[in-house]
Amino acid sequence: MAQQQARRLARAAEAAEREGLSALLITPSADLVYLTGYDPLPLERLTCLVVRPGKEPVLVVPSLERPLATSIGADRLAEVTDWGETDDPYELVARVVGDGTKVACSDRMWSAHLLRLQRSLTAEFVPASGVLGPLRSVKDERELGLLRRAARAADETFRRIVHARLEGKTEREVADQLGELLVQMGHEKAAFTIVGGGPNAASPHHEPGGRTIQGGDAVVMDFGGRVGGYCSDITRTVVVREPPREFGHVYEVVLEAQERAFRAVKPGVPAEVIDRAARQVIEGAGYGGLFMHRTGHGIGLEEHEEPFLVAGNRKPLRPGMCFSIEPGVYLPGRFGVRIEDIVTVTEEGAQRLNHAERDLQVVA
Amino acid sequence: MAQQQARRLARAAEAAEREGLSALLITPSADLVYLTGYDPLPLERLTCLVVRPGKEPVLVVPSLERPLATSIGADRLAEVTDWGETDDPYELVARVVGDGTKVACSDRMWSAHLLRLQRSLTAEFVPASGVLGPLRSVKDERELGLLRRAARAADETFRRIVHARLEGKTEREVADQLGELLVQMGHEKAAFTIVGGGPNAASPHHEPGGRTIQGGDAVVMDFGGRVGGYCSDITRTVVVREPPREFGHVYEVVLEAQERAFRAVKPGVPAEVIDRAARQVIEGAGYGGLFMHRTGHGIGLEEHEEPFLVAGNRKPLRPGMCFSIEPGVYLPGRFGVRIEDIVTVTEEGAQRLNHAERDLQVVA
Repeated sequence: MAQQQARRLARAAEAAEREGLSALLITPSADLVYLTGYDPLPLERLTCLVVRPGKEPVLVVPSLERPLATSIGADRLAEVTDWGETDDPYELVARVVGDGTKVACSDRMWSAHLLRLQRSLTAEFVPASGVLGPLRSVKDERELGLLRRAARAADETFRRIVHARLEGKTEREVADQLGELLVQMGHEKAAFTIVGGGPNAASPHHEPGGRTIQGGDAVVMDFGGRVGGYCSDITRTVVVREPPREFGHVYEVVLEAQERAFRAVKPGVPAEVIDRAARQVIEGAGYGGLFMHRTGHGIGLEEHEEPFLVAGNRKPLRPGMCFSIEPGVYLPGRFGVRIEDIVTVTEEGAQRLNHAERDLQVVA
Repeated sequence: MAQQQARRLARAAEAAEREGLSALLITPSADLVYLTGYDPLPLERLTCLVVRPGKEPVLVVPSLERPLATSIGADRLAEVTDWGETDDPYELVARVVGDGTKVACSDRMWSAHLLRLQRSLTAEFVPASGVLGPLRSVKDERELGLLRRAARAADETFRRIVHARLEGKTEREVADQLGELLVQMGHEKAAFTIVGGGPNAASPHHEPGGRTIQGGDAVVMDFGGRVGGYCSDITRTVVVREPPREFGHVYEVVLEAQERAFRAVKPGVPAEVIDRAARQVIEGAGYGGLFMHRTGHGIGLEEHEEPFLVAGNRKPLRPGMCFSIEPGVYLPGRFGVRIEDIVTVTEEGAQRLNHAERDLQVVA
């Protein structure tokens, strides 16, 4: 891992140089894990990795976390510099950066830190995803292996839940059961469990609540966990005993949209083309206004990361990218359908990482 | 709750006016929960509450989350405005703010959002903690009740773990057991579990690992969870069978520092005075250089929030404030001691919320 992270740090420094950046400023986040393996709790005291073209990286840490940073070997990847409670860590970072005209900060850096850095460091600030997005979005074999393991564990979770009885349970109870299954099937932890039954299935990010699932409900289940730090994310929509009116048709439309989007994936294709492929099927069936979200998002150390499959994103897909394809149609007050797989771009086209049944499952 | 949140929103708008702010911009965070009860996952799509002096609050949400926002009643507290995938939500926020010279954004807003807002909105940006810190740091009766319940559950967790055998277990195993106990004793979830044994006890934020706890080890355990969204946080240091050399003396010094700091708490006293009270005891005993962190931090919807008990913080304590008092002494390569309670400021002085034994516990 240390060798791999040293390579990633070198590539990030090279990319920063190409972009005319004096430095990347990386606070605790998936960016920091990707570059160093260091994953402290994000807290009010500044921890900041400074990556500079042609120079050794510097990791600025609060004094009380120097032992933590060195215990994971951060001192073999970067010069570790610590600051005491009455020092100004922003001035310290500014001194490490030196004269700069343009610096990039991690996209999830807290504004409390960014606003202080902007006062200490006169430079244009841009998001680090411009540099790190292209690196992080193309997965290597080890990362792909972890994403595959996570996807398999999510598939198995779905296979178990369709054999559990849903009718008579609350959404919250089903969500809790999904959380337990995610871990039993091989995740280190469950990350999220959306369960929306009946009219709640029309709310894409519904928070599972006290509504009891009934016969005739469509139930959208969208869930995922972590394996070795990498995420799973799958959505399936089932019906309890019998489908509501119009449901069967909508399900076929969404399934077809998902398949068309999947077939559109190949290297060099702009990301927005995948969104358009799904959207055309849904618009053609007259449900365009009821598909109000993008078709997908990249996945890796974060549930949502580059590439985003959304109108306007013309960046070309590249082999090794991994993302969701998750079209949906939502009929307010009635039901919703979403079908989501994680896929990876191959040299020839794409592969699904999820293999749970996509054909409609009727459950008890 | 809705009435209480409406009052909080009104007080935040008044405080913003006093500070000469055109608006508070609040993205998903404890700030948003405090003001509205709305707690969506922080994701790449902008969700932003705009609080303006003398005007109704506006909640900007991505279209797919409008049903989620209205399901928790956000539309009774604010005008909910949604944006579609091809709209620019930053321009939308800028239009809602209108002409502004100074705006405040939540301290944990992602830089990816802040940098875009800074492009759309010509104004000085400052951290919202300047306005929300004073509001959030003084707890009302309901909040105090939840913090007391959380503290009691943490106390019980400690009482159980000292009767469990530690010797022969790895730090990771003890951390997992603490996680389970936190939930069994009444937390909705465990939030963090630091366990450092032997030399690892000298690393204040040690990540529990594979080291097996042995006789003669000091073991620092720092853990907490959530009750009704409010945090617990307690630290105790125990020894396994017999203390290492010098340990007993250091333990007495830290215990005395904790007690002196506690006795220094009363309304009107500057926060830094509490830090100084603890530090003087430790410096007087010749261990000043080995106490390298602040004495404490506020606690509430976040584990760490205002007030911070640190040199330089001259803000006066006020009744209802809740914070940790957690001095420590760390001898590299040998052992560490930290003792932490949550306390609340009363009209007369202070009360401890934690009551787990502070006298040294010798465990098996």
